[in-house]
Amino acid sequence: MEGNKPMATPPGVSPADFDAAIAQLADVVGADWVFTDEETMDTYRDAYSPLRGEEEEKYASAAVAPTTVEEVRQIVRIANRYSIPLYTISTGRNLAYGGSAPVYSGSVVLDLKRMNRILEVDEDLAYALVEPGVSYFDLYRHIRERGVKLWIDCPDPGWGSLIGNALERGAGRTPLPYRDHFGAHCGMEVVLGNGDVLRTGMGALPEAGPNWQAFPYGAGPLADGLFAQSNYGIVTKMGFWLMPEPEASMTGAIRARRHDDIIPLVRMLAHLQYAGIVNCLFSLNSPVFQSPMDARKSALLDRADGGSAAEWDDYAGSLGTHFWETRLRFYGPLNVIEAQWEHVKARLGTIEGVELTDGDVMRFPLTDDQIRRLGDPATFGVPSLSVFTSQAGTTGHLDASPMLPHSGEALLEAHKVYLREYRDAGVPMTLGFAMSYHTRAFIMFQGINLTLDQEENARARALYERLIRVSGDRGWGIYRAHAAFMDQLMATYSYNDHALMRFNETLKDALDPNGILSAGRYGIWPRHLRGSRA
Amino acid sequence: MEGNKPMATPPGVSPADFDAAIAQLADVVGADWVFTDEETMDTYRDAYSPLRGEEEEKYASAAVAPTTVEEVRQIVRIANRYSIPLYTISTGRNLAYGGSAPVYSGSVVLDLKRMNRILEVDEDLAYALVEPGVSYFDLYRHIRERGVKLWIDCPDPGWGSLIGNALERGAGRTPLPYRDHFGAHCGMEVVLGNGDVLRTGMGALPEAGPNWQAFPYGAGPLADGLFAQSNYGIVTKMGFWLMPEPEASMTGAIRARRHDDIIPLVRMLAHLQYAGIVNCLFSLNSPVFQSPMDARKSALLDRADGGSAAEWDDYAGSLGTHFWETRLRFYGPLNVIEAQWEHVKARLGTIEGVELTDGDVMRFPLTDDQIRRLGDPATFGVPSLSVFTSQAGTTGHLDASPMLPHSGEALLEAHKVYLREYRDAGVPMTLGFAMSYHTRAFIMFQGINLTLDQEENARARALYERLIRVSGDRGWGIYRAHAAFMDQLMATYSYNDHALMRFNETLKDALDPNGILSAGRYGIWPRHLRGSRA
Repeated sequence: MEGNKPMATPPGVSPADFDAAIAQLADVVGADWVFTDEETMDTYRDAYSPLRGEEEEKYASAAVAPTTVEEVRQIVRIANRYSIPLYTISTGRNLAYGGSAPVYSGSVVLDLKRMNRILEVDEDLAYALVEPGVSYFDLYRHIRERGVKLWIDCPDPGWGSLIGNALERGAGRTPLPYRDHFGAHCGMEVVLGNGDVLRTGMGALPEAGPNWQAFPYGAGPLADGLFAQSNYGIVTKMGFWLMPEPEASMTGAIRARRHDDIIPLVRMLAHLQYAGIVNCLFSLNSPVFQSPMDARKSALLDRADGGSAAEWDDYAGSLGTHFWETRLRFYGPLNVIEAQWEHVKARLGTIEGVELTDGDVMRFPLTDDQIRRLGDPATFGVPSLSVFTSQAGTTGHLDASPMLPHSGEALLEAHKVYLREYRDAGVPMTLGFAMSYHTRAFIMFQGINLTLDQEENARARALYERLIRVSGDRGWGIYRAHAAFMDQLMATYSYNDHALMRFNETLKDALDPNGILSAGRYGIWPRHLRGSRA
Repeated sequence: MEGNKPMATPPGVSPADFDAAIAQLADVVGADWVFTDEETMDTYRDAYSPLRGEEEEKYASAAVAPTTVEEVRQIVRIANRYSIPLYTISTGRNLAYGGSAPVYSGSVVLDLKRMNRILEVDEDLAYALVEPGVSYFDLYRHIRERGVKLWIDCPDPGWGSLIGNALERGAGRTPLPYRDHFGAHCGMEVVLGNGDVLRTGMGALPEAGPNWQAFPYGAGPLADGLFAQSNYGIVTKMGFWLMPEPEASMTGAIRARRHDDIIPLVRMLAHLQYAGIVNCLFSLNSPVFQSPMDARKSALLDRADGGSAAEWDDYAGSLGTHFWETRLRFYGPLNVIEAQWEHVKARLGTIEGVELTDGDVMRFPLTDDQIRRLGDPATFGVPSLSVFTSQAGTTGHLDASPMLPHSGEALLEAHKVYLREYRDAGVPMTLGFAMSYHTRAFIMFQGINLTLDQEENARARALYERLIRVSGDRGWGIYRAHAAFMDQLMATYSYNDHALMRFNETLKDALDPNGILSAGRYGIWPRHLRGSRA
């Protein structure tokens, strides 16, 4: 029953108890859906592990795949009975953040991929209610086959779970509020650590019907936020607001010449976003900061002030490039989006030398042929796996992306700080630009490629830890971390001598007293394992 | 030290302990800011109490008004020491929902009105960080005096606290997302039941700076939702996103003739709202349903089907009126809002016989003189007390407002159900229309006037309890209740044999083990008082 990987059974659980638990799990879901064999368990390893081949790599001891909420409840009861640590995954596609491998070695993966029912899609009220195993592909096909005039919002790879991605605070590429997947949810069903089933918001009314997905707050305190990036329960249903298919879309391209142009550019774009005139995802690219490192750039970064605006402008001149560029996309009725872009041009045109170029117009719905030819399908709510074509030669990557306030000054400083860190670590920076995923903050996108070379991966890990510290020290919090670094990440959220973690642990003890749910996720360990933290 | 009202000291606290606690509170805040005298304590009674003059009216035993977070922490420690129940208010203006009176008689009011610092207003990042005692008037004056080009969103009376209103899930009159006060907050500071101080979201990074108000989620679980409509902590700071002052505003009026026109009208308005084309507050009025009750209307309501569309249309004809009306307001650059209204007219024009009338254009900023002459100042982010002029002859009111999904069918049913209930109770319905406060749901506004007549008030209370039950049974949850009815309200949120309340109580025991914080708010009682629930 046990694989031969290190830590392949739950620590502290006797072989007899483990066998008894496995047998009882098989009674609940059927023997075909409890896995302990090495070949299957190998599929639950983290495909992008920065610890691949290292002693510290995390392994699951077994996996169990239920199909109903009642089965989940029974599994939770068995886990409580034998102190079996469970580790919940939806579809297990949380790549770059741990995939389907547990944070705590020896955990039994609670794999919800078979709970894949699309329970409701309401075109008028524009929402979907789904189970954790439903992927973006699943929901997209369901909607397209029925001719429903709604768009989904999907992250770059479309095979992940809507619920899993939202709980990890993932984001996609269509307008706000839809691309903030947690923000666009409404209503949850959760199995708690004691096996109780909770419905949040209006779902606590037995006859709520569509009101469950219409009003997120219900009455009294709202617990939804507790179930994201945590281990207080197992989310078994979740509602998502969907975007009505727009009539049209058009783009406008923006180029600004100088280092300091980012300051008015961000100030104006931010206010346009706060006023709902710009609500697309845009990425602020810098051909200067994103160009390959060279001696002159390196020397500028080493100046006490990180290089003056004039020096950087001079350097940009030597590269023969403008300093900043972005592209906005507008979605909606053609007359409205034309007016929006016209207004944006009038506002941004006050930046000296800025270039503002009209883009193409697209009309919806797209034909199957148009969809096949899209270069950026997620921008139109179409899931794909095309992002993986850009990752040849690597064995995965890490993502250490801090949040930045909407401030050009902060962006300038962040570019310089992080370029120095990558350079000093001897690791090539991938990505390296800010994206407007959220309502009021940028994600500074920074990747670290992983390879088959153990030394390179050790450097990658050291840089990751350094980026967590540097970001935390400057208040540019990283919002999501790979499982191997969750403790370090949460240690930076240390206000008032780690009041947040004390609070999180108080909740953990109350909601999961036996500590059976996803030990270690986001630094939250059950009481009996707190001593084992690094 | 004690008033002569019933229950004027905390039950179960000895006079000696109470005196000791009061003396220690005076040591913390100064003797001038601890109140036990009858005259002052009278000001903490609920001015709109439906129990005024009844034995069950709730009274506080004392009040204490700190100025700093550190003083709040010390007060919490004293309360823990002597088992003194505290009841937190911000400015105490929660009228129609309990005002400044406690849910549990004998509580000591923790009055935060002196914590009234506006800690930050950032024009570029468009946010404010405030303490609980800051009122809408305070923030408005601060912004206007400095010429900051931001609007606040305020509820109808402007004297309330931003924090108090947001925690009660109040809403105002400017565009989404700003008018959803809880939804537009970003970052909290909370004193917990054990005296610990927590900062949520990015605030848990010691150097967060503006990022605290830029990104709401931080990393790991987010607790903010727990501190709304609850008693798990004392919120001492909160950030709010503010709306950039728009260039202009214009309105468009809509009239639809027939009973069933509400079905396509709501369907279209909902999708326009989900697409961000309509984001104003609008109220769906019916001159037919809101007309005075008469024999013919009463007979229609008594039909098994609540009256057919044709019968209601015939009745509307007899009144000589159209069936539905509303007015949309657009805020933004003139060319954009003109395009939006043009698009709305094209869509809604497909409803046979609909009238669509252009309104006036206003340009911002308004002059002081224009502001003085505004009939609906909150619509432009200007706080006032003008709402009170419409309430002559009453001694206050109750508000029993359910949430409805965006469905014309649900609106039709709700009008008929509630008109019957008011008629059968012999209580005149005030208000009686749906408003688009929230992103995906209407609030069906229904008031019940209170008077000096005890029998009338008894009827008002009986109707209120009946409305809670009727609404809950149909899944049209009431989102907010007067303190006297919180237990009944929360009892309707009963999915899975009251799983939500079991969960809420588990949190209460963990976060406030001595049960000193706002006992009974939203039906959440500390363990030692649970037996006393009705």
